[in-house]
Amino acid sequence: MTLLKSWVSSANSAETEFPLNNLPYGVFSTGGAAACGVAIGDQILNVTALEAAGKLTLAGGPLLQKAAWNDVMAAGPAVWDALRTTLQSALAEGAAEEATFAPNLVAQADATMHMPFTVAEYTDFYAGKNHAMNVGTMFRGPENALPPNWLSIPIGYNGRASSVVVSGTDVVRPNGQLKGPNDELPRFAPSARFDIELEMGAIVGTASDGMISVDQADDNIFGYVLLNDWSARDIQAWEYQPLGPFQAKATATSISPWIVTSAALEPFRTTTPERERPLLPYLTESKPMLYDIDLEVALQPEGKDETIVARTNYNEMYYSAAQQLCHHTTSGCSMRVGDLLGSGTISGPEKTNRGSFLELSWGGKEPLTLDTGETRSFLEDGDTVALRGSAKGDGYRVGFGDVTGKILPAPAVPDWAK
Amino acid sequence: MTLLKSWVSSANSAETEFPLNNLPYGVFSTGGAAACGVAIGDQILNVTALEAAGKLTLAGGPLLQKAAWNDVMAAGPAVWDALRTTLQSALAEGAAEEATFAPNLVAQADATMHMPFTVAEYTDFYAGKNHAMNVGTMFRGPENALPPNWLSIPIGYNGRASSVVVSGTDVVRPNGQLKGPNDELPRFAPSARFDIELEMGAIVGTASDGMISVDQADDNIFGYVLLNDWSARDIQAWEYQPLGPFQAKATATSISPWIVTSAALEPFRTTTPERERPLLPYLTESKPMLYDIDLEVALQPEGKDETIVARTNYNEMYYSAAQQLCHHTTSGCSMRVGDLLGSGTISGPEKTNRGSFLELSWGGKEPLTLDTGETRSFLEDGDTVALRGSAKGDGYRVGFGDVTGKILPAPAVPDWAK
Repeated sequence: MTLLKSWVSSANSAETEFPLNNLPYGVFSTGGAAACGVAIGDQILNVTALEAAGKLTLAGGPLLQKAAWNDVMAAGPAVWDALRTTLQSALAEGAAEEATFAPNLVAQADATMHMPFTVAEYTDFYAGKNHAMNVGTMFRGPENALPPNWLSIPIGYNGRASSVVVSGTDVVRPNGQLKGPNDELPRFAPSARFDIELEMGAIVGTASDGMISVDQADDNIFGYVLLNDWSARDIQAWEYQPLGPFQAKATATSISPWIVTSAALEPFRTTTPERERPLLPYLTESKPMLYDIDLEVALQPEGKDETIVARTNYNEMYYSAAQQLCHHTTSGCSMRVGDLLGSGTISGPEKTNRGSFLELSWGGKEPLTLDTGETRSFLEDGDTVALRGSAKGDGYRVGFGDVTGKILPAPAVPDWAK
Repeated sequence: MTLLKSWVSSANSAETEFPLNNLPYGVFSTGGAAACGVAIGDQILNVTALEAAGKLTLAGGPLLQKAAWNDVMAAGPAVWDALRTTLQSALAEGAAEEATFAPNLVAQADATMHMPFTVAEYTDFYAGKNHAMNVGTMFRGPENALPPNWLSIPIGYNGRASSVVVSGTDVVRPNGQLKGPNDELPRFAPSARFDIELEMGAIVGTASDGMISVDQADDNIFGYVLLNDWSARDIQAWEYQPLGPFQAKATATSISPWIVTSAALEPFRTTTPERERPLLPYLTESKPMLYDIDLEVALQPEGKDETIVARTNYNEMYYSAAQQLCHHTTSGCSMRVGDLLGSGTISGPEKTNRGSFLELSWGGKEPLTLDTGETRSFLEDGDTVALRGSAKGDGYRVGFGDVTGKILPAPAVPDWAK
């Protein structure tokens, strides 16, 4: 597919992440109340205002008056299609709607972005094989790197929905129980191994009750965000046996300000890799269900230039979001509108493709040297991390907006905790 | 404390779980819309109707018009206290309110109970030492039964809020990935080791942002429910490494129809046990934070009489709900009104005190003989399980109502999953 031309001229550049082909959904404000917006070039179309003024009508509406996209999701795929078709037509070069829509554009530079949807529940997976191999090798040696179930199950755990924040939100280094290999007893202290995880997040748009197929799961996904699953490795190492990560992952989970719809990603479908062990039939995919999305991680020390520390692609996943969502329902688990499924850390095969500092610095043993000459094993206070991702079309790209977060120092340990 | 007398005569019996001392909160219906109700003897007081009629006024109200107790929780402890004081006074023997309140009583026998609150997020802990020792011994041998962190951390994991259902809801046996010790590859089949977990659930009534102390956590807990954490042991055994239980625990989590408030449980406070390893200061309790609540598990095969298969007490826990909630916030994790914290399985020291069939039948090796002569290792289709719990005062008791669930057969495996 090639670039679709818009009357919003900034949307016609090969560099913008938001051409007419994309039209991602977010929530923004410019001093007043937050509203639903659609990114187009360097602008945001205020669809809440358009709907309120009767210039944009959706079946079952109003659906855009709550500063969250959940009502649109809940309205179902026919409404998703109708909205996208309407917007793509109205924003196209030469469209008659220019006169009515143009006054509802706001410059992205003037807007503050908010959470694009209300997260119902948050599940995080562990479905990238390079990441699982790297982490497993560090923790259990290369022979036992992959758990026995890994090639059969998209392993996941329930995360904390209240941890999910929008890009730009500062991230306060957590305190927690830590126990080093030489400590006899644990202590309560700031995490010294605070890390990122580069992930994609899939958003459930259609609720389900009972088990659904991979095909149905694929249909039920409304769209995707970039996701940074901030992780305190020292808290995690001490707490995670036997029931999995808990406080290590509860500090914050940052997502991109824009939801890129499954429809916008359709031209970029790609297959999951060859199976090393046959999957059970319920996990078989009938068509390509991953997406070819280039990803990168940038680290910017306070007051310095950034360094790109990793580049990889969403096509490195062993399991698709559709497979994860299907597996999530096997036990009869009800899924809700607004459930968020993290892909798991996305690492490629090479050292420069690794989506966490745990892997990039090999557990702190091989610190990275940044372009500034500084080194990093894990995050330091004042560091800002940015995740970026875009799918590349013929003369255009489809992106999510950066997911940024700056690390603030840990809170002082209260007197009663000393 | 002794029995407080009410003009609702059935509330004055030593046998009722719902004397004037209790006044637990639920949601009920009798054919029409669901409403908030307060149990008193064998009756339910319709407080939604009283508030709507202007006969019950709460600061910041209306708070009782949404068929859920979340608005009352969010209003804060001063409102909790005021409501309890008002109700205890109005329902007391000789109260002038009898004339206006009596027409708003409904017989419990005529009511259908609904979820008493909207579960924001659900966390389940693993904080009973007898249970942890029993399960650990079965899985890892007696020397490695307790994980190294267990005596320092109230171990918990995030559960699935959408799994929480009210007592009386049928529970459909789950399908899932299973792999027996002699299977070369996993298969997709109904769970053959479907089990219960006898727990208490603490309900967060006051939201928090950032770390809170154990004392503050104790204050933030609105009340308690009985909780059955239905668990598929064969799914759990294959899936739980390395990130913890997932689909094994997502089928259903049943809670009692009545929330017993922390205020009603106040006379029954008791201490957590002696520490075998000193706790870090942040987990220290300044006063007794467990409760002395007798608990029992009954199993009723289809069409047969029930057998009490276990009796224990909430005072068997190693960690209190206040300690769990405090630990939950250490990493800066925000807690919400309506968060539900499962205590973990409550087992006493003896074989007859065990709160799961996994323990009662020692992993299926020592099947139980029921009073009917039948044996059970795990649950069979048609079985109904009831959990019961009550604190014993001087001539009265404070209970939760039974938590029941009947096991229905697993859904047929769909063609695409064969």
